[in-house]
Amino acid sequence: MDELEEALAMAMTTAVSNTRVILRRYMTWFPSEDEMEVTSYISDFVQGEVSTNNVVMKVMSSGHPDFKAGNLCLGDDWMARSSVQTFPLTEVTRTKSRRRSGGRSMAAATLSNKRVILKRYVTGLLSEDDMEVVTVEAPPLDVPTGSKGVVVKNLYVSCDPYMRNRMTRHELPSYIPDFVPGEVLENFGVMKVISSGHLDFKAGDLVWGMTGWEEYTVINNPESLFKINHPELPLSYYTGILGMPGLTAYAGFFEVPKPKKGEYVFISGASGAVGQVVGQLAKITGCYVVGSAGSDEKVNLLKSKFGFDDAFNYKKEQDLEAALRRCFPEGIDIYYENVGGKMLDAVLPNMRLGGRIVACGMISQYNLEQPEGVRNLYYIVTKRLRMEGFHVFDYYDRYYRFEEEMAGYLKEGKVSYVEDVVEGLDAAPAALIRLFTGCSVGKQLVAVARDSSDPDHT
Amino acid sequence: MDELEEALAMAMTTAVSNTRVILRRYMTWFPSEDEMEVTSYISDFVQGEVSTNNVVMKVMSSGHPDFKAGNLCLGDDWMARSSVQTFPLTEVTRTKSRRRSGGRSMAAATLSNKRVILKRYVTGLLSEDDMEVVTVEAPPLDVPTGSKGVVVKNLYVSCDPYMRNRMTRHELPSYIPDFVPGEVLENFGVMKVISSGHLDFKAGDLVWGMTGWEEYTVINNPESLFKINHPELPLSYYTGILGMPGLTAYAGFFEVPKPKKGEYVFISGASGAVGQVVGQLAKITGCYVVGSAGSDEKVNLLKSKFGFDDAFNYKKEQDLEAALRRCFPEGIDIYYENVGGKMLDAVLPNMRLGGRIVACGMISQYNLEQPEGVRNLYYIVTKRLRMEGFHVFDYYDRYYRFEEEMAGYLKEGKVSYVEDVVEGLDAAPAALIRLFTGCSVGKQLVAVARDSSDPDHT
Repeated sequence: MDELEEALAMAMTTAVSNTRVILRRYMTWFPSEDEMEVTSYISDFVQGEVSTNNVVMKVMSSGHPDFKAGNLCLGDDWMARSSVQTFPLTEVTRTKSRRRSGGRSMAAATLSNKRVILKRYVTGLLSEDDMEVVTVEAPPLDVPTGSKGVVVKNLYVSCDPYMRNRMTRHELPSYIPDFVPGEVLENFGVMKVISSGHLDFKAGDLVWGMTGWEEYTVINNPESLFKINHPELPLSYYTGILGMPGLTAYAGFFEVPKPKKGEYVFISGASGAVGQVVGQLAKITGCYVVGSAGSDEKVNLLKSKFGFDDAFNYKKEQDLEAALRRCFPEGIDIYYENVGGKMLDAVLPNMRLGGRIVACGMISQYNLEQPEGVRNLYYIVTKRLRMEGFHVFDYYDRYYRFEEEMAGYLKEGKVSYVEDVVEGLDAAPAALIRLFTGCSVGKQLVAVARDSSDPDHT
Repeated sequence: MDELEEALAMAMTTAVSNTRVILRRYMTWFPSEDEMEVTSYISDFVQGEVSTNNVVMKVMSSGHPDFKAGNLCLGDDWMARSSVQTFPLTEVTRTKSRRRSGGRSMAAATLSNKRVILKRYVTGLLSEDDMEVVTVEAPPLDVPTGSKGVVVKNLYVSCDPYMRNRMTRHELPSYIPDFVPGEVLENFGVMKVISSGHLDFKAGDLVWGMTGWEEYTVINNPESLFKINHPELPLSYYTGILGMPGLTAYAGFFEVPKPKKGEYVFISGASGAVGQVVGQLAKITGCYVVGSAGSDEKVNLLKSKFGFDDAFNYKKEQDLEAALRRCFPEGIDIYYENVGGKMLDAVLPNMRLGGRIVACGMISQYNLEQPEGVRNLYYIVTKRLRMEGFHVFDYYDRYYRFEEEMAGYLKEGKVSYVEDVVEGLDAAPAALIRLFTGCSVGKQLVAVARDSSDPDHT
């Protein structure tokens, strides 16, 4: 353990000079609702850099006014990798611990909070049994004195394919923390601020960002939230075309492959939240656009509503490679990849010299125990292809510019948008599964509570 | 056939304005040595662009002084895709046709030309039986009046993995023409000019570039050759560290992933012609460098001679992913990919966020009937990786700058180089196979004829 102590000492030195917090990482494990056992498990400690993964940590030393040595906290480095974001452990465990609920929570006990929790880590195909809708006590709706957090009422929550990845237990930390069995699911949503300890937010503000799949959520890092500047548009759009999937489409298409007018663009999963927007942006750019989808209804939507030049139902094609050759006799310049696996294998031989593949997602692989093998990678060499993964997180600084541009397209009717909305958290588990069974048509989301200020309020 | 006629007419118009030659493509087939059957097979005709693949073609119309309608020629668009390079069919068929050899070739009949030909298209593992060493009549050593070609004596020819790909028959044109059964193999070599019809070359010049696996070769497009500016270094180096593999290493490392000091670099096939150079350039750049190779002897070479920080014998590792984790506890920033398949699958989970993969070659896959499936591609998304194929052809404009820099490193002793030289064309087929059995140690090449001016002359 000498090496570790030395690394800690060095890291502490770094911490003092840059006001970062150095954390000792513990593995989280709740053997029962009554107890919280903290195991002294330390891994992946890197000097000057703390990679966290929804783990319980103890502050070793701190240059930051909000933390002091000895604090226990739950960490999550996802929203902003440059700094460690934490929230006090009591926020998380309150609803789990009888010791605490017996005492201080009596005052607020009348308000309940329906939520969707992960029941167990998922292997193979996601099923409704992997999730559970439970009702717990709501957090106090007033933020505690001194907190810089906000309490929000969730209006809409988004169903996105990447959530499946978070339901698998990863031995090595993934790019985003795994969900924890027993804990509420989280994802992007549209929310109304109920109370705020943060100067940038006040009660009544409409925001979007990461929240819980529940009625009320305490958000301790409201810096990660975005203000909604166009409440005259349907608020639900901020889970999609005006939110994370919209920015994913916009940044993934314009920033990664840098498209030019006249180029040949192929989009898989094209009727989904991201694909439908990519296709319309590609048409605005002057590209030739073809999409694939999993039903004739979706194919029809692509051609009739979103203005794709062509589209095909991949489930009806015997030979995907031949289908692509038929649609792109000149080959593909840009492939916007949402599905992976067999489709990627069929695309590679159809790429043009110097073509670009934007790797946005690989939904066809998420429910497989072992991913499909892709055999045609040698075309990356022979055709001088560039295949590039990207995360929307790296492009959040462009959000408000994007919001203005996309709101403009929507108001001018240059861009259409199709949603698939289910009502209420009880329907949320089934809605998430619809993404993977191909039943969703358009952006899948859940209306948690309808707000009277929403133009789409029903 | 109306569409085709229309395309030809449109293409001819284009041709007149840019002095390009429009060719009607025929498939080549030599059923016997006596006959050449030309089938009127036309494929892949694109307006304004002629993609050739070592095929027999008939000139339809020409804006170029060297060609007129009706000429038969053999085409090859590889060395310079922007123009069609051809040479008169008689050059190719002379040695195959008794009709001709009975007449005009008597005068030059005393000089023979040993060559290595492809016997048949190869499937699966390459064997010596797939090639044959034959002796044919040499071409006239004086270039014909009016020709702008050169006749060269081949001194060294290079054995490179990509040659295996050219021995497979491709239904769709690959990035480089397939070899043709019965025809001489070709690859990069070091040559001495015997006679020249081109202003830029004269007898006695030392050059390197694409040539035949034979003693004498007529090169009708000498613009594709490079002059040798450092004959004080071993001439054979121009098949390797000072030639195509050297430039491949240099451009593929500096231009594609744009390495920075302190980055973690992994190189597979690290003791080969390209790998050993990449590793040393990475060390000069200040990177941490690890290589994999297929024997303890090669691993020792990497560490002791080429200055790699670490290396491992992939054949001795039960778990490649674990081997890489051991060598790179912090992960890999840059992977220089020479082998593909299982190694790529093991590298992907070990890449760091934002890592870059240079796809230079995938030698482990070339002899497989069906390539191995790579399953870990989702890491391209989650780790925001960029995987990029590249061809040295795109970087030839940097060659002379590279030659000066690399010659400097060699003279200063900053870079070492190891070759595996076999003597004579008779040994060439076995030498090529050594690349794929892993028997080559260092750059594999064939000394065809030793030149007295070569410092390495033996």
